[in-house]
Amino acid sequence: MTIKDVAEHSGVSVSTVSRVLNNHPDVSEAVRSRVLETVRELHYVPNSSARDLVRPQSDAIGLVVRGVGNPFFSSVIRAVEQAVNQAGYTMVLHQIPSGEDEIRAAAELARSKRLLGLILLGGCFDYTPEQTAALEIPFVCCSFTNSFGSLKKDAYSSVSIDDQAEARRAVEVLIRQGHRKIAVLLDSVQDHSISELRYRGYCQALSENGIPLEPDLVAETGAFDMSAAYEGTRRLLARKKEFTALFVIADSMAIAAMKALHDSGRRIPEDCSIIAIDGIDMSSYTVPTLTTLIQPQEAMGEEAVRILVDMVEERAANRHIRMDTTLRIGGSVAAPN
Amino acid sequence: MTIKDVAEHSGVSVSTVSRVLNNHPDVSEAVRSRVLETVRELHYVPNSSARDLVRPQSDAIGLVVRGVGNPFFSSVIRAVEQAVNQAGYTMVLHQIPSGEDEIRAAAELARSKRLLGLILLGGCFDYTPEQTAALEIPFVCCSFTNSFGSLKKDAYSSVSIDDQAEARRAVEVLIRQGHRKIAVLLDSVQDHSISELRYRGYCQALSENGIPLEPDLVAETGAFDMSAAYEGTRRLLARKKEFTALFVIADSMAIAAMKALHDSGRRIPEDCSIIAIDGIDMSSYTVPTLTTLIQPQEAMGEEAVRILVDMVEERAANRHIRMDTTLRIGGSVAAPN
Repeated sequence: MTIKDVAEHSGVSVSTVSRVLNNHPDVSEAVRSRVLETVRELHYVPNSSARDLVRPQSDAIGLVVRGVGNPFFSSVIRAVEQAVNQAGYTMVLHQIPSGEDEIRAAAELARSKRLLGLILLGGCFDYTPEQTAALEIPFVCCSFTNSFGSLKKDAYSSVSIDDQAEARRAVEVLIRQGHRKIAVLLDSVQDHSISELRYRGYCQALSENGIPLEPDLVAETGAFDMSAAYEGTRRLLARKKEFTALFVIADSMAIAAMKALHDSGRRIPEDCSIIAIDGIDMSSYTVPTLTTLIQPQEAMGEEAVRILVDMVEERAANRHIRMDTTLRIGGSVAAPN
Repeated sequence: MTIKDVAEHSGVSVSTVSRVLNNHPDVSEAVRSRVLETVRELHYVPNSSARDLVRPQSDAIGLVVRGVGNPFFSSVIRAVEQAVNQAGYTMVLHQIPSGEDEIRAAAELARSKRLLGLILLGGCFDYTPEQTAALEIPFVCCSFTNSFGSLKKDAYSSVSIDDQAEARRAVEVLIRQGHRKIAVLLDSVQDHSISELRYRGYCQALSENGIPLEPDLVAETGAFDMSAAYEGTRRLLARKKEFTALFVIADSMAIAAMKALHDSGRRIPEDCSIIAIDGIDMSSYTVPTLTTLIQPQEAMGEEAVRILVDMVEERAANRHIRMDTTLRIGGSVAAPN
């Protein structure tokens, strides 16, 4: 079975068959499908070494974003896209809802798009070597790391803040203002993810300052979005357990919490102080301005690409970068009344 | 991760794994579920490279986004990405700042990534046939159309709202509440783009209601972002020209304007009503909730992909879809004091 047989059977020239097999754009859809039909019928297998010579290598770097609609990711995605382009590669973006399995999605993407490398944004913190073996390409965890998993340090890369330490720092800002009745709004206390780590920082700050943990002041939203944060704050208020300050694990959720506090007649910061972590653009425009720990979103995206490209181009091995946040004093924190 | 690993982990032969994966009937239910369980655990992705041999190499659809960081685009980008994937193509995303030439960027992308088709998000409204000739592939303008340009209707596709009519409708909401001193906050009155069209709607509503246009109430920000909107509102207030209501051409800019009004001691809606167009998620969480005309963001993204894929697959020619907004009554509009 040769390319000549395929040409004869489909009634076109050998060079047309070649153009179809090499995906040249200048072939009509009708001719293309006739040739491909013949290829299938005759079980023709193109000479792969010849094909590899003319077929361009993939230049694709995947970005799998878990957590559709999280505004924190917007600036990271933008930074990753720019850095990938500047390095001469193509970014293939795939966004999935928080509940989905990003490793499975990434493995499928890696296979179907022949990715050279992968950046995971907003993934789980508990991968096992068995799971990530499916990836078969270098990958960088961006904005998180493998705190709950069993990956060896040299099996993956990461760029992240120290979530627990930063949460502790945020809660200490409230404690230094004199607050002792401090509530926390988070996705879940046990999600093996960002929420659990930031909850640990909350607990640590309380404990180090001799403040007992009060379960009624721990508000789990069950989801990482604004609508869940609004409802979670309403439920927290409905418990009628007094608190003078609220630590929210993310800016977007904090903005929804501010709305819920306002709708319940609480003034910020007079009746309730509020602090968060992230530093999304929108948090500069809340009334009052949200006090928050700003993550270096663009630098995180750029570093993730730098690490990945170094690996793709075989200049360096896996590595891990820890970044610091910057406290922005807004108007949402004051001493308790 | 290979089929051998799956076989080993599930304690069956490779051919049994293959039979399960290909849905052969002659496998016991117990074995089938054990194998599938292992496939899930190991995140195994069946090898599809045999299929890849006969599959066209470029399956790329480009999405060029002009206006980095505009939150209105987030949900459109997400919808486009999902629809492109569902149609069996790959989305290649390219984001550029508002000032850049998106046709030039798109033409480069089309060549380097061998795009089959293109969606432009947030582009100019004044293309000429000479400009777009550089594209050489079908393209869809998403969230805008060629109102100021000279393209023939059958040379491009579009999915958009009627910007002028919707702006007129927004201003009429204010007029019906009794406002006659109505300011407008926009990028520019002459940008041959969304800002100019919405400004025309503002002028039309005033004129139809016998309200003279007052140049001092027209606030140009010179840029389409929150920081420029905040400063533009401050400058408007500094003119000391009285107004009881403000029409802002976009939600994100309206959120910044609300902040500027608040920082100048104006209460919303008591001292100043405010209305906008877009319906981004965040506008539900402002205090008070922003009254706005919601664009069908997801439907716009989906329609753009449907039109483009129909052209790429040669099922249909260029077409134009006009969509309607939905008025969401928030708390930012009231009768003047």
